[in-house]
Amino acid sequence: MKILMDERGKKYLLKEDREFQTDLGIIKKEQMERATIGDEVITHLGKKYKIIKPTVNDFIDLMDRRCSILIQKDIGVVLAHTGLGAGDRVIDAGTGAGAIALNFGNVVGEKGKVFSYEIREDFAQVAKKNIDDFGITNIEIKNKDIKQGIDEEEIDLVFLDLPKPFEIFEDVYKNLRLGGWLAVYAPYIQQAEISYKISKKVGFSDIKILETLEREMEVRPQGTRPKTRMVGHSGYLIFSRKL
Amino acid sequence: MKILMDERGKKYLLKEDREFQTDLGIIKKEQMERATIGDEVITHLGKKYKIIKPTVNDFIDLMDRRCSILIQKDIGVVLAHTGLGAGDRVIDAGTGAGAIALNFGNVVGEKGKVFSYEIREDFAQVAKKNIDDFGITNIEIKNKDIKQGIDEEEIDLVFLDLPKPFEIFEDVYKNLRLGGWLAVYAPYIQQAEISYKISKKVGFSDIKILETLEREMEVRPQGTRPKTRMVGHSGYLIFSRKL
Amino acid sequence: MKILMDERGKKYLLKEDREFQTDLGIIKKEQMERATIGDEVITHLGKKYKIIKPTVNDFIDLMDRRCSILIQKDIGVVLAHTGLGAGDRVIDAGTGAGAIALNFGNVVGEKGKVFSYEIREDFAQVAKKNIDDFGITNIEIKNKDIKQGIDEEEIDLVFLDLPKPFEIFEDVYKNLRLGGWLAVYAPYIQQAEISYKISKKVGFSDIKILETLEREMEVRPQGTRPKTRMVGHSGYLIFSRKL
Amino acid sequence: MKILMDERGKKYLLKEDREFQTDLGIIKKEQMERATIGDEVITHLGKKYKIIKPTVNDFIDLMDRRCSILIQKDIGVVLAHTGLGAGDRVIDAGTGAGAIALNFGNVVGEKGKVFSYEIREDFAQVAKKNIDDFGITNIEIKNKDIKQGIDEEEIDLVFLDLPKPFEIFEDVYKNLRLGGWLAVYAPYIQQAEISYKISKKVGFSDIKILETLEREMEVRPQGTRPKTRMVGHSGYLIFSRKL
Repeated sequence: MKILMDERGKKYLLKEDREFQTDLGIIKKEQMERATIGDEVITHLGKKYKIIKPTVNDFIDLMDRRCSILIQKDIGVVLAHTGLGAGDRVIDAGTGAGAIALNFGNVVGEKGKVFSYEIREDFAQVAKKNIDDFGITNIEIKNKDIKQGIDEEEIDLVFLDLPKPFEIFEDVYKNLRLGGWLAVYAPYIQQAEISYKISKKVGFSDIKILETLEREMEVRPQGTRPKTRMVGHSGYLIFSRKL
Repeated sequence: MKILMDERGKKYLLKEDREFQTDLGIIKKEQMERATIGDEVITHLGKKYKIIKPTVNDFIDLMDRRCSILIQKDIGVVLAHTGLGAGDRVIDAGTGAGAIALNFGNVVGEKGKVFSYEIREDFAQVAKKNIDDFGITNIEIKNKDIKQGIDEEEIDLVFLDLPKPFEIFEDVYKNLRLGGWLAVYAPYIQQAEISYKISKKVGFSDIKILETLEREMEVRPQGTRPKTRMVGHSGYLIFSRKL
Repeated sequence: MKILMDERGKKYLLKEDREFQTDLGIIKKEQMERATIGDEVITHLGKKYKIIKPTVNDFIDLMDRRCSILIQKDIGVVLAHTGLGAGDRVIDAGTGAGAIALNFGNVVGEKGKVFSYEIREDFAQVAKKNIDDFGITNIEIKNKDIKQGIDEEEIDLVFLDLPKPFEIFEDVYKNLRLGGWLAVYAPYIQQAEISYKISKKVGFSDIKILETLEREMEVRPQGTRPKTRMVGHSGYLIFSRKL
Repeated sequence: MKILMDERGKKYLLKEDREFQTDLGIIKKEQMERATIGDEVITHLGKKYKIIKPTVNDFIDLMDRRCSILIQKDIGVVLAHTGLGAGDRVIDAGTGAGAIALNFGNVVGEKGKVFSYEIREDFAQVAKKNIDDFGITNIEIKNKDIKQGIDEEEIDLVFLDLPKPFEIFEDVYKNLRLGGWLAVYAPYIQQAEISYKISKKVGFSDIKILETLEREMEVRPQGTRPKTRMVGHSGYLIFSRKL
């Protein structure tokens, strides 16, 4: 995977098999094929494009994202709280366009594995294409209702973004490794509460409901201050551990 | 690395080469040697201990931590904002007891590498021991002042937790790969401002100062509510990208 | 009402009818009687005390406060959101030690009136004494269960800090003036939700649930930053208007 | 002062000396003259309007507001932290359209007084008209640069919303009563810092910099959650007391 970035900072996925046409001119198919990360390529109008190795975030920004995705601050909480690392085995449901699966796949690396369950065929197709485009091989998209059963065992992290996640907590508990984490994303407080209570009933430990507020600071000539507008809420994250 | 957990949820690092004595009784050296993840071992008083594969967070909780460490919510912001992943090359300074290096090492995996600069020899020693204990081989502790120069090139992420991080931004810029990130932790707003301004001057793009507030929700019999006390501030995180 | 403040900033209620003994020496009864606001009085050990006209907050800090009181940030939200002013008529329940009644009495002034309902006789007694001590005459403490009925009409603001405030919303609606406000303090989200729904059912308009987070900034020689600890939650405030 | 409210909740200032034309029909001058608070008046198209006594907030929403005004959450912090009450004497600068003066005038009542300094004649004119329209007589708008000197003494609260408020802190100190408060509104952290430091130098006590975040909760059929968007920052409030 490579991206092209023009002088204004605008980014594009680089497709090696075709000519690239922009408002700053044309880059020929041959140029695209030969472009290596770190290179500069020049359009027929003389404009420069840099070839950059994308981070997973660059790619997610540019990919087909037809359903809403978890925002970065919440992904950060999941990664940090569960201590997810290279080599881990993760389940997520539902896949959506595959953004969170890409985030997990990016962290667990070649020795790890992500199994991503999606009930809708159209979403599963989009996710598969996105994952192929990013060129990562450790994510398996499963077009299957996770409520029908979880096929994998000894899982380090199960992440659920479902309307009624708690319906499968017993199954999740069985399929987690000892010490593994369940993480649930829930926009409404009632979902968080029920998740908390059912986690407890099913036998999970270290149960916590967290929410984060992220604020950006502005440095202006007149002085420094937080930005006027911010995101007030994305969702609650409920963490439970099998111990 | 393995940890022992008793029935009360109390955790200990498992040392295979010695007998383990607790208030719940003794586990013999032979038991310790043979213990496999997932097993239960029993003390001479009949108490059970589970053997668990620790997450990086379990280990950091138990290791020698003689200097303050970055809190989880801030590690999450760094991981999520920079999109750090398996195979990436990271520099961090100062090492302290090695907690953040462990977090990075955990994510970048065997194909990645962490170079951690620490000016104080005593901290470097502690960090080395902690890293050995965790059994990770992709972290190199360098007992060296990072202001004397950065030895590595084509770095994906440089993370600085230093009193005057901005003194080395030019060097950092040179040693980052195209598309790489500089992330700075700064408890005071003035450090954040100067970091912002010097990042800009040095040529960085996509510069942002972020702070997060994390709040826990309590589910009680009477109802649900945020916890009464919370952390009001840990620090600002300043992100800048080489593009 | 007057208060005494020593050179360390420590404050005391001034009682004119008695000698005052502190660790900085004795002030005689005659001195206490003659002390006027703005004066300095001197103990037999030569230590100075200033005589100050207290704000309502000074008084509340010093008075008998045997039950928990609404914190300042929440009082501020009530005052600002309802636009309470001099001359307004207010009902509050339960009184507790009378702090919120004092806050309201302080704002509505001589032309206004506060009717404060308290079911427990001991609390009502404490509140009466506190109000007498502060020397305000526009607050009437009623040792009565507000669920037995509200006696006053054409009220500008009804403030409820009760376990099930919503049980009396119909009554409140009847006794408010057109344009008057109901404000409810609720620590739990469920109380806030039910209050919201019943307000709507009873016919209230402009219904809002608000919560505020207040953070203090520290100015230190090394720099400026928010305080490390802060209050994470006191309660939700639910506002509904009769229109 | 009276306001008219139609069946959709839309509000208008009632002017007794003229016919009132809306999209819901005409109310005759005679009807307007006779309208009493609590009445309903009917347009020639048969639509009802309620006559309501406005709160100060209703009036500020409807008045000529050509400059930005302090938001409610910040007014609340000022009122609550300083314990402003009926009978108090307040200075504010600059007046702007008079909103904060109206808030103060509303609280201090007939026995209190607000002196509002505004350097620009056009703003002073607008503010005077607004105050006349609201029908409050305890506010004096002074078309004068407060840096030229403060005329009033024994003030309970001085509120400054100026670019460099700290230039007059010495003067403010002199003109406050013992126990009186200085409150400063500052959007930028640097203004807050300097205000903090100069307050200290000038001799003020109990100096605090506060900021508040206000969040609204939504009750929907699917569940309850904080609103997606919120105000991230309005300003810092710096409080200092003369003791």
